[in-house]
Order: sequence, then structure tokens, then C-alpha cells
Amino acid sequence: MSAGRRSGLSGFPEWTPAQQWVELEVLDSLRRTFELHGFSPLRTRSVEPLSQLLRKGETDKEIYVLSRLQADDESGAPGGGDATGRDDRLGLHFDLTVPFARWVVENAGHLTFPFKRYQIQPVWRGERPQEGRFREFVQADIDVVGAGDLPEHHEVDVALVMAEALGRLDVGDVRIRVSHRRLAEGFLRGMGVPDPAAGLAALDKLAKIGPDRVADLLSLAGAGPDQARACLELAGLRGPGALDRALDLADRHGAGNADVTAGAERLGALLAAAAEVSPGVVEADLSIARGLDYYTGTVYETELVGHESLGSVCSGGRYDDLASAGSQRYPGVGLSIGLTRLLSRVFASGVQASRPVPTCVLVAVDSEERRPASAAVARALRARRIPADTAPTAAKYGRQIRHADRLGIPFVWFPSREAGTPHEVKDIRSGEQVTADPAVWLPPDADLRPVRTG
Amino acid sequence: MSAGRRSGLSGFPEWTPAQQWVELEVLDSLRRTFELHGFSPLRTRSVEPLSQLLRKGETDKEIYVLSRLQADDESGAPGGGDATGRDDRLGLHFDLTVPFARWVVENAGHLTFPFKRYQIQPVWRGERPQEGRFREFVQADIDVVGAGDLPEHHEVDVALVMAEALGRLDVGDVRIRVSHRRLAEGFLRGMGVPDPAAGLAALDKLAKIGPDRVADLLSLAGAGPDQARACLELAGLRGPGALDRALDLADRHGAGNADVTAGAERLGALLAAAAEVSPGVVEADLSIARGLDYYTGTVYETELVGHESLGSVCSGGRYDDLASAGSQRYPGVGLSIGLTRLLSRVFASGVQASRPVPTCVLVAVDSEERRPASAAVARALRARRIPADTAPTAAKYGRQIRHADRLGIPFVWFPSREAGTPHEVKDIRSGEQVTADPAVWLPPDADLRPVRTG
Repeated sequence: MSAGRRSGLSGFPEWTPAQQWVELEVLDSLRRTFELHGFSPLRTRSVEPLSQLLRKGETDKEIYVLSRLQADDESGAPGGGDATGRDDRLGLHFDLTVPFARWVVENAGHLTFPFKRYQIQPVWRGERPQEGRFREFVQADIDVVGAGDLPEHHEVDVALVMAEALGRLDVGDVRIRVSHRRLAEGFLRGMGVPDPAAGLAALDKLAKIGPDRVADLLSLAGAGPDQARACLELAGLRGPGALDRALDLADRHGAGNADVTAGAERLGALLAAAAEVSPGVVEADLSIARGLDYYTGTVYETELVGHESLGSVCSGGRYDDLASAGSQRYPGVGLSIGLTRLLSRVFASGVQASRPVPTCVLVAVDSEERRPASAAVARALRARRIPADTAPTAAKYGRQIRHADRLGIPFVWFPSREAGTPHEVKDIRSGEQVTADPAVWLPPDADLRPVRTG
Repeated sequence: MSAGRRSGLSGFPEWTPAQQWVELEVLDSLRRTFELHGFSPLRTRSVEPLSQLLRKGETDKEIYVLSRLQADDESGAPGGGDATGRDDRLGLHFDLTVPFARWVVENAGHLTFPFKRYQIQPVWRGERPQEGRFREFVQADIDVVGAGDLPEHHEVDVALVMAEALGRLDVGDVRIRVSHRRLAEGFLRGMGVPDPAAGLAALDKLAKIGPDRVADLLSLAGAGPDQARACLELAGLRGPGALDRALDLADRHGAGNADVTAGAERLGALLAAAAEVSPGVVEADLSIARGLDYYTGTVYETELVGHESLGSVCSGGRYDDLASAGSQRYPGVGLSIGLTRLLSRVFASGVQASRPVPTCVLVAVDSEERRPASAAVARALRARRIPADTAPTAAKYGRQIRHADRLGIPFVWFPSREAGTPHEVKDIRSGEQVTADPAVWLPPDADLRPVRTG
């Protein structure tokens, strides 16, 4: 039962039942934390029109397009084009933020703002299979969206909620690294980099491709050698004092401006507020840019301490322009846990559940004729919330016990053979066997359901 | 907040937050029941190669095929064809049984049989949009699969588990209607119908198109008028005595044979066992054929009493040939709840949650400077599992109370303004306001989380 991920399709992981319990525990824990903080549950459809998925123009997310196998027309396009020439074929969503933004605009008339929701669903990226990246994975998102404006304290709140949520998962310490788009873009503009957006996209790759290749990209974005060096110096700033050094760097290069100051101020306020509630969890890291994404303010990435090579397990930021209808804007801020990536690391370290099945008690079956008596015992146990099953066949007791043992079921129940004789229950780990009444017997709490091990 | 289903794409329903709570409660309840009965959780990937989805040949399920928008090659096929000429493009699964069968074969070496799993996931059908059918919907499945053989008592067990699971949802009474493929096919063959499979597919449409058009289809399947009449008479048998009348009908037409007898016997045993545990829930209905599906034994459909026009909300059957590897067969039996269909009816009757947000207490904010004091109160409440949020802005108290009221949040908390003065909490429904300590105050249990109303 320790199969690991055996799906034959690369990029489409599947967990074993013993791992699935851990995932369920994680999902339940996230849900509880999000709900404690006032986030409402939401699930959106898995598909959006391509026009919606591509609305913000360039994206680095690969998209899966759907077509009907039994399509009636040659094009295979479910929606077909419309009069405006938009591409209204359907695609699978590549994140949960774009569908959420669409949903908010559609439902704005029925919502009270700021609206807070959590959303836990699979997303899909049509990556080339050979890259070995996930093509289907679960994200767990929280977002707060305002109508017209969104108070800045929400940029602190979402980081703290995620810190708490990740902390409760008991998967190790996390560090949420933050930067601010205005600070970084302002600095690039102040330095005279002709294409600040391209510059940001270059800096975003620092951890992946290293400073030399980022410098090449910066020069493609129009930066001269001195400008590239200063940008790389900015991106190298991290931890306590990073903001002061950033302002100092801007001063030295005459790159200071209102955006740099405002970005640094907001980031500073966020760091101070977070430090008060959860010291050491949130830190500045000015290399974070989240290149091609739709963010306009604070940006976040999260590393699992000791597993930095895994990359960010929880990212996001503030977006002011993602959702709008007419002149009404819906600015938001949110964070998204890459749950599949996180779990893949947890499972690689050997974590799984103590047993693959929920069953706490296997009720032995004496003979097929007496199966109803065993089924009645199982029902009595279930009535008191004890997961119970009957043996699949009336084999010899030894074989029935081995069946329980193979599944990690701790107890085997032997029903009374005739009126007046007692039932007995055996702890198959210790071998201890005692008489018991199906209406009152209780297993130890620790045996009631599968628990995390490893 | 009573938005209803407002998704702009027909066939892709989305629930409001107030409905989403009901769905979550339903999902949790199903999970608990399935786990109490020893079913392990499983989630499979959403996609399968088309060769897998089409493996059993003809299907009436419409399939969505995926292609990468940024495909490198002209074909757009992620997997491309292989040497055997199979179509290895990827498609979204149209049910959870086909992926489960594939998963069982892939993981058989790590499983202990019979293997019981539940699986709750969306499935997709590429229906023509104008038909107004669901194109994305959630199914909740249970299946038991054996290696080589599967004891017949599982055909009773799964029906009783589903009866219990549906009963606990508190959505009304359900009636599980059962028939047996061997009985129906044996009868058609015994009657001399040249193409019994086509005959079954015709009978399956009885409720939808009526006896006259079924008779037309039967004649296309090669049945003469007398044969068609007898088949329709068989399909009309339902409820107590249906099996005896079926055997009688077979006798009268000289259509009796070993399959008819065996099918009737197995169905009779199932009905007797089910009647003993849950009287009145499972009944014979010989119109049920499940035409193009992969079933070989018992077949099930389930109607919501009083909402028969909704169609079957939980269907399935026994399949002996769905999964196999070499000479090893994995026969199974399972049932699948069409959760989206069921919930659409529940929501249409006005059921939703008492409030759209989890928040039980909104902590008022005196001024932005004193927001940390309000946040500390919210933290203290959350530490005792009370969902709490702080007011979005330090507006006048009246406005903060109206914000809570619009969201259905029952309590507003006013933090102590200075050391030594007490906190106060107001039930905004009654207007009652009392002093309270954030470390000990508790709301009534009924207010702790949203509950079902309507």
C-alpha cells in the first residue's frame, strides 16, 4: 500500500490512499484556519473562455484548450467566435485568481465588500510533458477584494493568515518573503531602465538562472552595465535592514522617486505589523518581482525553511486592475498555496497515514449464513462513530486476521456465536483478546482514525 | 447574497457562498458515512488518454479533448499517437469509474483486495451547450473491487451504504431501484430478440420517451410486435412481486433460461437483505437497464421521492469486465451520486446557509491606530475556535454594525477603549449588549457556524 505516485502520465500526480489521508487532513486544517478568519468558501467552474484567460494579455501560464470529441462542426470550438472576433473557445483555468476576478464582477451586485473568500481546487497548466512539471495541481487560495478601494491592512492580514495556516500544517517552518512592485518598478524607472516591466521579469529569474544571465536579460531590456549592476544589487537585498539599504541605494544612484518611497513605506508598515504578531515569519526580499503576473503592490513568495530548493509554496500579491466593470474597479490581495508541490515534498520524506483504510474494527464472519449477525455488530459500532467493516469472506479466522493486518486495521471483532455467549475483540497488534459489548466498547482515541506517521 | 447560479456559461453551474456552505456540509456528511463503512479516500487525475476513455468502445458520454494552446507541433496532441496507432490525446474524464478501473490496474500490486474506495470529484461531459445539461458536475462514488472474484454481498452493501449516506443528507426520502442485467438480457435472448444489447438500450429509454417509441426502437433491434410487447411488459414490472411476475412472464413466453433464473435469484437475495436492514428503500424495477454502460450484473438507479422528474440522483451497478490486466480480472460494484443534480434541486427549493460568511463575531475598530487592539481580540476568539474578523474600516460604529448585519454576522464586539474598562459584545439581532472577556466569552452553539435554512 506504499505505492507512491504511480500515474503513468508525467505531470499528473496521484497519491496513494495512505497519502490521501494526509492530504485530507491538510485540506481540513486549511479550511478551518481560513474560516476562523472569516473567509467564505467558493468553488468556481474549471473552465473559462479563452478571452477571459488571456484578458491581461501576455501570460507565462500554458493553457489547455477544450474541444468536444463529438463536435458537430469542423472547428471543434464549443463556443465558436463571436461578432467581436474574441476567441471564445473554453480553456481550463491556470490559477484561481483569474476565475475569482471574473466571478466577483459577475456577482458584485449580490456581494458585500470587502469580500473574503477561500478556494481550494485543481488548476491546469499545459506544460510540455518532458519538463517534468505538474500539469494538474491543487491550489489553496485566499483573497480579499474591495469595491473601489481596499484598505492596506488587508495586505498584512492575508500574509498572517497564511503564516498561521501553513504553521498548523506541521510541515516545517515557513518564511514569507515580500517585496513591493512600486518600489522595484520605481527603482528601475529611476535608474533609467527603458523597459521596467522587462527588467522586473528579468530580476524575477534571479534565483533560477543566476546574476550573470539576469544581467544579460537586463541589457536586453535596455539597461547599461552600471544600471544592471545597481538592479542586481537591489535584488540582492534581503532580511532586516533591506529597506533602508534599498533607499540608500536609490539615493546613491539618484534613482529615488515617489514610487520608491511609497513602496518602501508600505513594505515597512507590513513588516512591522507582521513582526508584532508573528516575529521572524515575514521578511523583505527585494528579488521578488513575480514577473508576468498581474500584481501592482505587495508581492509575496514563501519558502519552506530547509527546503528552499523546492521554490515558493505560497505566492501572491496585491492586484488593483485584475477585475473591473465599467468604471468600477475591484482591487484585491491574495495568496495561493501550491498544495501539490508542498505535499510532494512532504510525501517524499516518507510521511503517510498509519493505515490506508479508515476501518478501526474488522468484524469477523463465521459463515456466510451468519454474515447478518456480523453486519449488525458493524452497524452498532458505526452508530457510535467507530469505522467498522465486515470481513469480505467467511474464511478461517487466521485468514481474516491477516486481512485486517495487511490493511493496518487494529481490531478484529468475533461476534457471539449463540445467544448468551459474549462477543470478543482482539487487538491484533498485542494479541490481547477481551470480551466486549458492541453497544458500549470503545477503541483508544488514537486508533479511531488513521494518523500521520513518518 | 442570494445570487443563485449566475455563471455565464450554460452547463457550468456555480453556487453562491450561502449555497456553498450547504455543499460543504453535504460533502462532509458523505465522507463521514463512507469512512464509517471502511471506504478509503481516493482522488485520481482529471484527465485520461482518449484510448482509456474509449476503451470499452461505444459510449454515450460526450468527451472534452485537451490541446495545448501553446503547442509546439501542429497536431496539438500532448501525447501524440503511438506505434499502435492509439489516440493518446488527453481527455477530461466523464465519470469516476473508468479512471478508478485504470488506477486499480496500475496499483494492483500495492492493494489488498477487495479494495473499497470513495471518490468525490468533478467530471466533465462535452454536451452541446443548447441542451441545457450540466457540462461540469461533481460525482460522489463508492466502489468495491475484487481481484479475480468479488463476493455478491458487496452488491447489497453498496446499496445500503448509499441509502444511509443519502438519508443523512436530509434532502428527502430516496428509493433505490434495482434490476439485473442477466435477468433482462436473458429474457430478451429467451424471447428471441436478435440484438439483446440494442434491446436493453431501447428499454433504458422507457421513462424518457415512452412505450410507443421504445417499441419502435425494439423493432429496429429485430423484435417482432409480440416480442416487443413482452419486453415492455417486463420493463413495466416494479415493486413487491415484480420478480415473481417476471419469472411468470418468462414462463408464459417460453423465454426462461439459466440467466433469467440466476438474475432473478440474485436480485431476490439483494432485495431480501436490503429489506431486513432498511425496509422500503430498495425495490425492484425491471425497466432499469443502463444501456450503454459497462455493467454486467445488478444495476441501480435512485430517485428522490416526490422529485422523480429529476431523474436518477445515484446510479451504478456491477461490472465484471471493466478492469483487467493480462488474465487477471478485477470485478467491481459501485454507485455514483450526481451531486450537482441533487444540489441544484435542493437549492431550487430555497435551501441555503444562515449566512454567507463563517464569521460569528465582527470586532469593531475604533480608529486605524487602535486596529491592533481589535485584531488581538479577534485572535483571542479564534484561539477558542470562534470565527472572528475585524471591521474593514474604522467607520462610525453604526456603519460597522450595518456591515455585520448585511453579512448575517450575529455579534459585534467593542474592545475596551482603555485599560480597566470592560469589553462589550452586542447581539445585533436582539440589540442586547453585555460586557465580556475575549478569553472566556462563548456564543450560543447555534451561532458558531452557518447552518442550513429554508
